[in-house]
Amino acid sequence: MKDGNPEPLVLRQDEGAVARLILNSPMNYNALSTAMIDALSDALDEVAGDEGIRAIILAARGRAFCAGHDLREIQGARRDEDSGRNAYERLFSRCAAMMQKLPALPQPVIAEVQGIATAAGCQLVASCDLAVAAEGVRFGVNGVNVGLFCSTPMVALSRAIPPRAAFEMLVTGDFIDAARARELGLVNRVTPTAELGAAVMALAQQIAAKLPAAVRMGKRAFHAQRNLGLAEAYATTGAVICENLLRPDTAEGIQAFLEKRPPNWD
Amino acid sequence: MKDGNPEPLVLRQDEGAVARLILNSPMNYNALSTAMIDALSDALDEVAGDEGIRAIILAARGRAFCAGHDLREIQGARRDEDSGRNAYERLFSRCAAMMQKLPALPQPVIAEVQGIATAAGCQLVASCDLAVAAEGVRFGVNGVNVGLFCSTPMVALSRAIPPRAAFEMLVTGDFIDAARARELGLVNRVTPTAELGAAVMALAQQIAAKLPAAVRMGKRAFHAQRNLGLAEAYATTGAVICENLLRPDTAEGIQAFLEKRPPNWD
Amino acid sequence: MKDGNPEPLVLRQDEGAVARLILNSPMNYNALSTAMIDALSDALDEVAGDEGIRAIILAARGRAFCAGHDLREIQGARRDEDSGRNAYERLFSRCAAMMQKLPALPQPVIAEVQGIATAAGCQLVASCDLAVAAEGVRFGVNGVNVGLFCSTPMVALSRAIPPRAAFEMLVTGDFIDAARARELGLVNRVTPTAELGAAVMALAQQIAAKLPAAVRMGKRAFHAQRNLGLAEAYATTGAVICENLLRPDTAEGIQAFLEKRPPNWD
Repeated sequence: MKDGNPEPLVLRQDEGAVARLILNSPMNYNALSTAMIDALSDALDEVAGDEGIRAIILAARGRAFCAGHDLREIQGARRDEDSGRNAYERLFSRCAAMMQKLPALPQPVIAEVQGIATAAGCQLVASCDLAVAAEGVRFGVNGVNVGLFCSTPMVALSRAIPPRAAFEMLVTGDFIDAARARELGLVNRVTPTAELGAAVMALAQQIAAKLPAAVRMGKRAFHAQRNLGLAEAYATTGAVICENLLRPDTAEGIQAFLEKRPPNWD
Repeated sequence: MKDGNPEPLVLRQDEGAVARLILNSPMNYNALSTAMIDALSDALDEVAGDEGIRAIILAARGRAFCAGHDLREIQGARRDEDSGRNAYERLFSRCAAMMQKLPALPQPVIAEVQGIATAAGCQLVASCDLAVAAEGVRFGVNGVNVGLFCSTPMVALSRAIPPRAAFEMLVTGDFIDAARARELGLVNRVTPTAELGAAVMALAQQIAAKLPAAVRMGKRAFHAQRNLGLAEAYATTGAVICENLLRPDTAEGIQAFLEKRPPNWD
Repeated sequence: MKDGNPEPLVLRQDEGAVARLILNSPMNYNALSTAMIDALSDALDEVAGDEGIRAIILAARGRAFCAGHDLREIQGARRDEDSGRNAYERLFSRCAAMMQKLPALPQPVIAEVQGIATAAGCQLVASCDLAVAAEGVRFGVNGVNVGLFCSTPMVALSRAIPPRAAFEMLVTGDFIDAARARELGLVNRVTPTAELGAAVMALAQQIAAKLPAAVRMGKRAFHAQRNLGLAEAYATTGAVICENLLRPDTAEGIQAFLEKRPPNWD
């Protein structure tokens, strides 16, 4: 900020076909202020439209991944004429829209989690497709401790982990550690802190090396079929796999496999 | 029963803002007879309307938590003109209504489980919001062993644990122990037998110390959003969290947190 | 094939009330060719109608349980006038219909898994009601590695294991071992390789010894209630348990239990 321009709230660093988005407000534990939600929304829209990007990492600077909503901003809105109702409705509507962008993005998104992920920060992790946590990370939906039940975070959390484990976290405000988060299915992998960045980048590059069209079709189909009955889910995904098969690059991928050679996808 | 009046089938002991309901028919392993279902239903209705109660424990006296339906009563109804059809329809309709009261109660309900919980007794555990079991407890949906598949218990069980683990229990009649029940998500915590009561009471008091309105809104929203699509779930819970935020006591809770002092909620 | 007649693609060996269906194309790792899908479909229809069969094992010959679709057949269809579209649509429609027969069968089906189960082979395991795997078995939905996302296999897989674990397998193409498959809920039991056959037969015989009508009603109800709301699920299963109770053989089963003697079900 030498020149008086504030640093952007979300940084982006690309490495090959991987975009790494970085929450960049370590001073307030990357709180999801309105400005942060908007900045992250914009960054997600940008990568969504970037054909060269095949996998996305959502990381964060500082001692926390994300500590949830910005409580100072929330308290400030109480001075509004309507005691904040309008501001709160806009805040949670924008936040929910941003959270729903993550499964809707064409590329898989991996949360790279260090420090703590609490309340809407835990929701952010649960809204990514995959998550990797450093050892020692703690997760919580602990709004209940200040009298604000984590009703919106639980939408993502209760779709990622078993219901009674989710309810326990919500109603006690207790934290779970990274190992327990993996056991419950919130986190896919746990790594030593020093290896977190490299481990997540390796996973992202592994995904980026797949045929991008297949990954895109697959991710969309994954989320589309989740709540359907069996027959409807098969109708939906059957159409997808046929389109996938008819692609010339998929034809090449299968042929290469049969001929025991690498595919020529370039 | 010294004075000829039978002891009530469900006892209630309050400790501060926690109501502890106790199944009190140890002689028949707290079987869910029609009388027991009605007594428990009435007790649940009573605590539901009690504004001073902020958390509920469902415990049981004797060597079993609950061994399911009362098979002697069921066999007795076969002598009815319709071979029991009417009696069975009433029994299972009342039982299902009672089971559905548990997630519908305004306060969180914790099952405190000792001994065994089988068939509808296992359903009772799975219908509470949380469960704590003593080491050595065994869970089963073993009706299949007598030719009666646990079709109604499986509604609650298959919503608490992974589907194939539930089906294995249902079709084999095999029991699982407390450690496996925790692994599967049926039970939140396992404690030594001697510490069960204290551990559950401590958990209940922890919940009772939260802002009651937030817990009530949260529990209702938790169950309301479970089967909704993502957009609908966010619409529902977004409205809830805004109402929660607009409460003066929540304003105080957040302010106290920002000022690093305990909230003044009395 | 001494006499020029090819061996059947699916073998059937009955042991008492248990039918053991065996995928019999070890040369191509029991690939789900159109012919194999049709043979398995026919075998399932046959056992479905066999009143004497009370449990089904789905096993396989050779070094793999099943390696998914027949990629040579798929590549062959590209020479069709429509580049294979029609062939693919028929293939996946028949495959989905076959997979859906497994939960729809009146008898429980146990997958007996050795070697590897990949892509549609993993789907086959996830479509059975229960699964037992030998130590060392590896599971994958690795079509993404050849540019074909496992969109149809994920229908069964994502209904058996937690969503983020399923997505990781789908998008990375990585394999999981038998122990992890049990942790995630894909597999019910893991046994030493030498004991696999005996362990699965023992489980099947245990199920076959239950009252067949109760198991049939129960399996149908289990799948029927899975996606319903709580009230609807209780209405459905309440009707089932009443019918179950009204059966004379169930009356005998309960009476025998109360009299501490084995039921007379023959």
